[in-house]
Amino acid sequence: MTAEPISRYPVPEIDGLPEDIRDRILAVQEKSGFVPNVFLVLARRPDEFRAFFAYHDALMDKDCNLTKAEREMIVVATSNANGCQYCVVAHGAILRIRAKDPLVADQVAVNHRKAQITPRQRAMLDFAMKVSQASHLVGPEDHEALAAHGFDAEDAWDIAAIAAFFGMSNRIANATDMRPNPEFYAMGR
Amino acid sequence: MTAEPISRYPVPEIDGLPEDIRDRILAVQEKSGFVPNVFLVLARRPDEFRAFFAYHDALMDKDCNLTKAEREMIVVATSNANGCQYCVVAHGAILRIRAKDPLVADQVAVNHRKAQITPRQRAMLDFAMKVSQASHLVGPEDHEALAAHGFDAEDAWDIAAIAAFFGMSNRIANATDMRPNPEFYAMGR
Amino acid sequence: MTAEPISRYPVPEIDGLPEDIRDRILAVQEKSGFVPNVFLVLARRPDEFRAFFAYHDALMDKDCNLTKAEREMIVVATSNANGCQYCVVAHGAILRIRAKDPLVADQVAVNHRKAQITPRQRAMLDFAMKVSQASHLVGPEDHEALAAHGFDAEDAWDIAAIAAFFGMSNRIANATDMRPNPEFYAMGR
Amino acid sequence: MTAEPISRYPVPEIDGLPEDIRDRILAVQEKSGFVPNVFLVLARRPDEFRAFFAYHDALMDKDCNLTKAEREMIVVATSNANGCQYCVVAHGAILRIRAKDPLVADQVAVNHRKAQITPRQRAMLDFAMKVSQASHLVGPEDHEALAAHGFDAEDAWDIAAIAAFFGMSNRIANATDMRPNPEFYAMGR
Amino acid sequence: MTAEPISRYPVPEIDGLPEDIRDRILAVQEKSGFVPNVFLVLARRPDEFRAFFAYHDALMDKDCNLTKAEREMIVVATSNANGCQYCVVAHGAILRIRAKDPLVADQVAVNHRKAQITPRQRAMLDFAMKVSQASHLVGPEDHEALAAHGFDAEDAWDIAAIAAFFGMSNRIANATDMRPNPEFYAMGR
Amino acid sequence: MTAEPISRYPVPEIDGLPEDIRDRILAVQEKSGFVPNVFLVLARRPDEFRAFFAYHDALMDKDCNLTKAEREMIVVATSNANGCQYCVVAHGAILRIRAKDPLVADQVAVNHRKAQITPRQRAMLDFAMKVSQASHLVGPEDHEALAAHGFDAEDAWDIAAIAAFFGMSNRIANATDMRPNPEFYAMGR
Repeated sequence: MTAEPISRYPVPEIDGLPEDIRDRILAVQEKSGFVPNVFLVLARRPDEFRAFFAYHDALMDKDCNLTKAEREMIVVATSNANGCQYCVVAHGAILRIRAKDPLVADQVAVNHRKAQITPRQRAMLDFAMKVSQASHLVGPEDHEALAAHGFDAEDAWDIAAIAAFFGMSNRIANATDMRPNPEFYAMGR
Repeated sequence: MTAEPISRYPVPEIDGLPEDIRDRILAVQEKSGFVPNVFLVLARRPDEFRAFFAYHDALMDKDCNLTKAEREMIVVATSNANGCQYCVVAHGAILRIRAKDPLVADQVAVNHRKAQITPRQRAMLDFAMKVSQASHLVGPEDHEALAAHGFDAEDAWDIAAIAAFFGMSNRIANATDMRPNPEFYAMGR
Repeated sequence: MTAEPISRYPVPEIDGLPEDIRDRILAVQEKSGFVPNVFLVLARRPDEFRAFFAYHDALMDKDCNLTKAEREMIVVATSNANGCQYCVVAHGAILRIRAKDPLVADQVAVNHRKAQITPRQRAMLDFAMKVSQASHLVGPEDHEALAAHGFDAEDAWDIAAIAAFFGMSNRIANATDMRPNPEFYAMGR
Repeated sequence: MTAEPISRYPVPEIDGLPEDIRDRILAVQEKSGFVPNVFLVLARRPDEFRAFFAYHDALMDKDCNLTKAEREMIVVATSNANGCQYCVVAHGAILRIRAKDPLVADQVAVNHRKAQITPRQRAMLDFAMKVSQASHLVGPEDHEALAAHGFDAEDAWDIAAIAAFFGMSNRIANATDMRPNPEFYAMGR
Repeated sequence: MTAEPISRYPVPEIDGLPEDIRDRILAVQEKSGFVPNVFLVLARRPDEFRAFFAYHDALMDKDCNLTKAEREMIVVATSNANGCQYCVVAHGAILRIRAKDPLVADQVAVNHRKAQITPRQRAMLDFAMKVSQASHLVGPEDHEALAAHGFDAEDAWDIAAIAAFFGMSNRIANATDMRPNPEFYAMGR
Repeated sequence: MTAEPISRYPVPEIDGLPEDIRDRILAVQEKSGFVPNVFLVLARRPDEFRAFFAYHDALMDKDCNLTKAEREMIVVATSNANGCQYCVVAHGAILRIRAKDPLVADQVAVNHRKAQITPRQRAMLDFAMKVSQASHLVGPEDHEALAAHGFDAEDAWDIAAIAAFFGMSNRIANATDMRPNPEFYAMGR
């Protein structure tokens, strides 16, 4: 199964890509030791690639009241609800590393209500799941439930935006048959 | 009800915004005669604003096999399925204008299966709705159904990406209580 | 698209209809300036026509604690949940006129939780939507929630009956491919 | 439990009812040996009572290509899907009697796909259940599936109208806590 | 329809069955006057037969805080939610007999919320239905709701295990097209 | 988090258990190096323990046309659909070991339609998921779809029974808050 394609779309040669995209890909390769497939799948559409990663970085790399591990919890929980193999596997790896916890990713993926997380993290994921699965029902009571755990309005925006952004990512991955790199499965275990 | 807020978040003064964001807002205001609320709601987060509109433009403004009206049909149909008032009302207006058809937006919003559209547009919306509502079920048979109506793999990507991007937008709008501007309701009728 | 049929069933000549049905149709034509398609689609079944409009009038035309605009809100919200193009468009028009509000119909159709309505109207629509979408779950707590907003038992009956009657209407319209008249789309805007 | 109320609404004295309603109730009592509770629950609203039973009779009592037993099958199957105790129990009794079959009602209620009915009846119930549970998805393919079993367009209307009418009845019964008379449970067994 | 098969699988001759299975079947036949089809359908797989009935007996025949009628209520309510004809009909009969109540089974099957049962039984069935239909959502609040009606942790286990066991039984019955014996329909009425 | 309980129920001392149960637990401990929590959680109810594992062994340990890895695929896919952390984690480990494939478990858990499995295994999981999630809809067409991939009637029974048995297991695990042992997470990776 080694030659299994990474998506139903052809993958461009890295050398032929626009310089900024090539640079980003080479940087992640240097850091991680491999190129996560999402970079290769999106690279054939440079404008979308740039916007996607700009949005990603704006949400996932900045300083905020959510730890980086907590942000990855949101990704993993909502991506399993959306049946997105790529995001559960890839972000599961990142979550294990960021949380320094080899167990939390699988727990959060299958059922965050049963995961060994704090009540605050549980409330964060309850909100993220509602935004992800039934955003039309979100109302003031959900913001109040967050506030009861110390999340302010900016935190609520962050949680919602991460759930929403990866909901987009999940749908693109499912429509393009994007596959996770084999490297992700065992990382951080 | 004139002073009703446009979202549950405070709106920044346009004058204090980064120049590129202010310029974009003033340009849309000049073109449309008013500033669509999505610009004002997102402006308080400049990096997210830039990424959001870069992604939007990459999908909605480029030349491709989908007309601009068809792309708006995708937005309107999927946004009603997600219960997003802002996107149904605002993009309903844009759809009426782009399609030069005062009726199509309301038809597509409520039930695209009953709308007066072409069989090709019906197939486009069937795929968009599946990506939007059950992307984990998307498979080769869906790409084949598109191909039977002349949509190639790039068109499939475009349809999926628009459904996915506005699925993100719908969730942000629902979580922030973003309201459509009153101007949109009657435009193009 | 001008000659598009108004349903998948043939439409009878008005002149050949039973006198009471013809009179009702001519009266609505005189009042509205056109004949709403629901009259023409149902006219081929005179007994069902008579029962349908008798039921309609018993609920929608009488004096009760719900304003006529509020009753139309129930129709619009539940009809969008049922994917009924005819009722959302036709009763959206009537709602705009009765409420003297060009915006409320589109808001209530897409997501009544985000509409600019009173808390009492919100409670009315919460109950109507539960009757419409999950009536097997309705219990004493729902009647208590109504009572907290001043709705008595007769009001609860009215709300439920309207949601139920238009749920029937929605299903008939969807099964017959009933189309809204073009005149409705811009009325009251 | 003998004094258990038949609904959450008070029941009027039969003597005080308008003459036509009293006559109808006395006629059904003479024929059946008891007054089915739906008559007593609706009687407090004479106009709705008259419209309800006029509609009922127009669909259920006329001559058409569906036998009376088949029409009751539609009621029983869709009413269980809607969680309506009154209609499953009362119309289950009528179905047993009309079909002269003590088993069919319970089979059709729980799962019409597993009932000992003809393929034609199975197709009829497939359509009725789609109209009842997801009418927004009904399309030409459903009418074609009916036609393959010899159902014409009028039959399709009849099936849809019965599913729709009892969908209304189910919702009213659920919202009013209408109870079936004890007599129904064992009738026709 | 007399020769209708009792499932899509062949039924073994009782004489050729292993002795313990034959004995069990003959015992139930002697007690009931007929052999419930579930014994005949499962008998072709002796190890599964033995485990199935051992599990059944461990839950349904022991002494515990749930009466035998209450245990049957759980079976009937959850089996209708799972569309299992065999279990609703067969256990409906057992429920009528154990409760000495000819009405309760049909009430609980269609909608336990509307059944003439005690508040304690209603709470029991609310929990059973959640375990049956959405067990991933079960949490401490559900155990607290049970405790408020006097159910302790062992009772909660019993309720959950019965709902779970018959969820298995329902799925096997649906996949094998298992039919209820005609004898069950009228028993206890 | 080391002292986190393995379920909401107390765990009995192994020494005090009936001999057959103690023996089984000691045997699995010797073989695996630890006692999977499901043994400890169920041991407090010896009769249920015995029936559960007898059923388990009858389905999972016998020789049949499904490989042991394939049987574990059914467990993993359906358990994630049911939100059962214990079964996804524990049986994911067993699947990796039995399939000698470190990747397949996570793929099958999140979305079996996107997993790197054979078309025959895909058909097996399609059937298992339908039995697990909507068994009332299973019909002859599903058995035919299996047959097209070489599965006979006995194989169909096996697939259905495994999906059904672990559906029971999932519900018990969710209702008891059963936790997977930490050892499972990294096994076979």
